[in-house]
Amino acid sequence: MTEVNRQILLVSRPQGAASADNFRLVEAPLAPLADGEVRVRNHYLSLDPYMRGRMSDAKSYAAPQPLNEVMIGGTAGEVIESNNAAFKPGDKVVGFFGWQEYGTSDGKSLQKVDDTHVPLSAYLGPVGMPGVTAWYGLNRIIAPKAGETVVVSAASGAVGSVVGQLAKQAGARAVGIAGGPDKCRYVVETLGFDACVDYKAGNLYQDLKAATPNGVDGCFENVGGEGLDATLARMNAHGRIALCGFISAYDGTPLPLKHPSLLLTQRLLVQGFIVSEHMDVWPAALKELGTLVAQNKLQYRETVAQGLENAPEAFLGMLKGRNFGKQLVKLI
Amino acid sequence: MTEVNRQILLVSRPQGAASADNFRLVEAPLAPLADGEVRVRNHYLSLDPYMRGRMSDAKSYAAPQPLNEVMIGGTAGEVIESNNAAFKPGDKVVGFFGWQEYGTSDGKSLQKVDDTHVPLSAYLGPVGMPGVTAWYGLNRIIAPKAGETVVVSAASGAVGSVVGQLAKQAGARAVGIAGGPDKCRYVVETLGFDACVDYKAGNLYQDLKAATPNGVDGCFENVGGEGLDATLARMNAHGRIALCGFISAYDGTPLPLKHPSLLLTQRLLVQGFIVSEHMDVWPAALKELGTLVAQNKLQYRETVAQGLENAPEAFLGMLKGRNFGKQLVKLI
Repeated sequence: MTEVNRQILLVSRPQGAASADNFRLVEAPLAPLADGEVRVRNHYLSLDPYMRGRMSDAKSYAAPQPLNEVMIGGTAGEVIESNNAAFKPGDKVVGFFGWQEYGTSDGKSLQKVDDTHVPLSAYLGPVGMPGVTAWYGLNRIIAPKAGETVVVSAASGAVGSVVGQLAKQAGARAVGIAGGPDKCRYVVETLGFDACVDYKAGNLYQDLKAATPNGVDGCFENVGGEGLDATLARMNAHGRIALCGFISAYDGTPLPLKHPSLLLTQRLLVQGFIVSEHMDVWPAALKELGTLVAQNKLQYRETVAQGLENAPEAFLGMLKGRNFGKQLVKLI
Repeated sequence: MTEVNRQILLVSRPQGAASADNFRLVEAPLAPLADGEVRVRNHYLSLDPYMRGRMSDAKSYAAPQPLNEVMIGGTAGEVIESNNAAFKPGDKVVGFFGWQEYGTSDGKSLQKVDDTHVPLSAYLGPVGMPGVTAWYGLNRIIAPKAGETVVVSAASGAVGSVVGQLAKQAGARAVGIAGGPDKCRYVVETLGFDACVDYKAGNLYQDLKAATPNGVDGCFENVGGEGLDATLARMNAHGRIALCGFISAYDGTPLPLKHPSLLLTQRLLVQGFIVSEHMDVWPAALKELGTLVAQNKLQYRETVAQGLENAPEAFLGMLKGRNFGKQLVKLI
């Protein structure tokens, strides 16, 4: 058996923007499996914006990632060795082993998945945490009615792409915000949104206004900053804002909301949320999302970096919007 | 019978701060009562911050007050003549006649009130729109649990004073924000809040921090600006913000929210509301509030200007916080 496990540790916290210096690649020995344990060869590592928050030790919903430990993260892979009756070699599993090639578990937080009709990597995307995040914010906070308009930022991303497609299925008008003409074309032509505004084109408010002739009833916010200000100015009375991410503020730059009094004059609801606090919805949401992917009714796209050593660069690029769809690292 | 009705009209919209020039006192003839009509001598005129919003024609929850018409507003008075079987001279009534000495109504939006145990003016304060506003935001949005901390801005005002007292009755810690030592002393000593922060003392965040050692679970916001920023920075996970007023932004100065990403990291709920959209709660709320006032369990304070001609000045003073408690104009 392999006895070396390559890992990436967080070795320092960002001052301002995160950088490659914050990470270090190390090799660690793999101890023999104890009784009840399972060893997994990770095939895919999920890279997600929330990880930037964990790199910081500012007050947040989660404890910071400890320094000099393996960087956290969701993983999908295959059982290669098992001393646990619930798992056998060859089982495909989703876990939370972080940025390393092998994971060892007592089996408790490991979930077997079926990759017959749904590709293994999709369990880190539309049929995983990002998908359930989209499902929760859209269905439990925005709850769009047919004919309403829903705006989604980072619309080509792992979460945003699902939000818009589910909004369309609910009969709403889906309008994305994304960076650049390629992403916007994908959002409209492949994902089926009604419109997509390119925030890099320099005319965000006017373009959003043109794309939302009836105003905005629901906003699924992944980014914050200028896009949120523009969407807020387009909100109709009794609109709902699901606050899921604030990627524009992750480097510590204070990004004010320019006209918060609109929250009052339009009687808006804002709800910040983190999907791990709503575990009750996961089974139903995953079932629905898995069925949609298996039936080819939910499109998604992946950007795949090759090899653990390229994870930091892929992560930093994702924070700048260089990925296109779900950012993964393929480890094998 | 009297044949002249003095009225105050809105004759121009503010550019920046509202001013006395925006209003004009006129005299209008009182037409003879038609069949089914009721004539009321207004005793009290209610002055409320929301009126500032109606003076503007910016997008808001309500149509702007038309120019050259009687300025809107709640009133309490006495029926002096009636061609309507439901009302007789001497009946005490609450209506929405606006800034004028007499009102004429078909009786539909006129409510008889009993001033045996509750003073007539209280129906414009704790047992009227401001009281129900407090009741709705506290009970339906913040819904404080015993032991939680609720922060209220404009704490000595008509709404804020009720919020804090109801929060205390719910077993919460009530912390006010008010302007000046006199108001703060009143908020603590007479209204029974646990603490009150003087925003004019120049140390708002540190003082609020000291007054909220366990953080903040509920925020009832009447003002916006610096107080809201400070309260937001003290919010605990899953806190609730009832957004009731933004008096600091009424002159059109954009007042940004400095750190909106806290709404996400603390998974906060923000709900803007206007109490006239929740008429279903009024009967139960008014019954509860009326009982509390009659039993002397709900304290309130009034600032009373004398004479219709002094209404504009009293209104402008209220916008600057010069009132102490509910601002009224006594007309007779």
